[in-house]
Amino acid sequence: MSRIVYVNGAFVPEEDAKISVFDRGFLFADGVYEVSSVLDGKLIDNDGHLKRLHRSMDELEMKAPASDEAITAAQQELISRNNVKEGLVYLQVTRGSADRDFAYPPAETPSTLVMFTQQKNLLNAPQAENGIKVASIPDIRWKRRDIKTVGLLAPSMGKMQAKKAGADDAWMIEDGFVTEGTSNNAYIITQDNVLVTRHAGHEILNGITRRAILKLAEQTELTIEERPFTLDEAYAAKEAFVTSATTFVWPVVEIDGHTIADGQPGPFAKQLRALYIAEAMAD
Amino acid sequence: MSRIVYVNGAFVPEEDAKISVFDRGFLFADGVYEVSSVLDGKLIDNDGHLKRLHRSMDELEMKAPASDEAITAAQQELISRNNVKEGLVYLQVTRGSADRDFAYPPAETPSTLVMFTQQKNLLNAPQAENGIKVASIPDIRWKRRDIKTVGLLAPSMGKMQAKKAGADDAWMIEDGFVTEGTSNNAYIITQDNVLVTRHAGHEILNGITRRAILKLAEQTELTIEERPFTLDEAYAAKEAFVTSATTFVWPVVEIDGHTIADGQPGPFAKQLRALYIAEAMAD
Repeated sequence: MSRIVYVNGAFVPEEDAKISVFDRGFLFADGVYEVSSVLDGKLIDNDGHLKRLHRSMDELEMKAPASDEAITAAQQELISRNNVKEGLVYLQVTRGSADRDFAYPPAETPSTLVMFTQQKNLLNAPQAENGIKVASIPDIRWKRRDIKTVGLLAPSMGKMQAKKAGADDAWMIEDGFVTEGTSNNAYIITQDNVLVTRHAGHEILNGITRRAILKLAEQTELTIEERPFTLDEAYAAKEAFVTSATTFVWPVVEIDGHTIADGQPGPFAKQLRALYIAEAMAD
Repeated sequence: MSRIVYVNGAFVPEEDAKISVFDRGFLFADGVYEVSSVLDGKLIDNDGHLKRLHRSMDELEMKAPASDEAITAAQQELISRNNVKEGLVYLQVTRGSADRDFAYPPAETPSTLVMFTQQKNLLNAPQAENGIKVASIPDIRWKRRDIKTVGLLAPSMGKMQAKKAGADDAWMIEDGFVTEGTSNNAYIITQDNVLVTRHAGHEILNGITRRAILKLAEQTELTIEERPFTLDEAYAAKEAFVTSATTFVWPVVEIDGHTIADGQPGPFAKQLRALYIAEAMAD
């Protein structure tokens, strides 16, 4: 471990990257975050991520810690200092540090801004090639999943439940319908070539990659329906996949032990992934 | 600010009380906590709090950071160093520090243990004398409220909603029934002297003070029903109150603008508070 990490304006070795124990991100999960992927040393869809960051902060009456220009400059500085060619930049804003109280601290309390990088194999991830297995679990999260907060214990537990079930990830079920994956949006393609994914609302996070993929799907033979879908629909699907900033598109080849189609990544998932990567690299 | 704070075995000035930005408490709300009150320099009901801490850790497959004896010794050291006569000791355990991943880090990753004190006027709190006003809000929290995690953004938002509505705190409503307050358990007393409070389950935190109060209520003229109750029942109640480790018992004199009885703290709430304090001081 020898990364340089950004903490409130300073670039420091990760061993020295610390925040106060009184930070509300630590005491109350009173923080929001974004993950932007990096390809060829360049941020992908970063404007979309910063826009959603502002939406999350606004929903929580949280103050921006810096201008978008300053944040982007720091992201790029981190990419450069850590020599990230492929991977991600993680960014977290919290309501700052104050003596513990459920009530928010005074509005002038400075927000906390933390950023770090991770090197990751995004283009040639084996999951993109082979597909992943998912297990369904109850969605026990709070009711404002549209706000990208660090209150991530439920999806973290869900990921472990999936692993125990022999799967790679979990799809969460509420009132009989799939909401999303633990850290990605969930899609099926019906036998009639309809791409189905949950509509944006308080029940899911409206993925930046989700929006891009729905737009790119217009270039394919797929028609699009944004609505809840059931597990039975998913088991019977022609294809299934997930999207997120760092997976782009990963095919789902098995759900709860049910093989999807012939158990191989399907052509539409491959096509959408290729279209997304081509657009990202072209920008 | 000049407190001494405990961080992973060290007693440090609060300005130096820091944890890694990679701590899972900061990144995933992957942590649990307890608050023990202090009266006359002594911990109240601390064994109950440590027992519940173990339950929370067990539910999350989280490793204890130290023995109960070591934790208690550190709590007492903090009380002594900070000269706390009346107030609280806050204690937080997280799954420790690791590069960010939804999956839990290896089991050998050391847990994080943080503790700090707050001086507070518990015995002569004005809210105990005058009662508090509560406003009802939807309960948007996750489904495992029985685990005392630091995922506290929803109740924190709820506290702010209550303040905007001119109230002191919020009671949270799910499926037409009161679950609990933002950081306390909720009770009503019917016109027939029945003490009603939500039964323990995944829907509420089973308060340590709640258990003590239900036991003490057996010494009064009250009969006890642990069941969900509605707002209409609450509006029509003879008395209402909340309990927690640091409030003991605070009467509720107004709910959503409805005055409870004559708007004055009721005799049962006063009696239960007196019984609790007497027992705490005697131990």
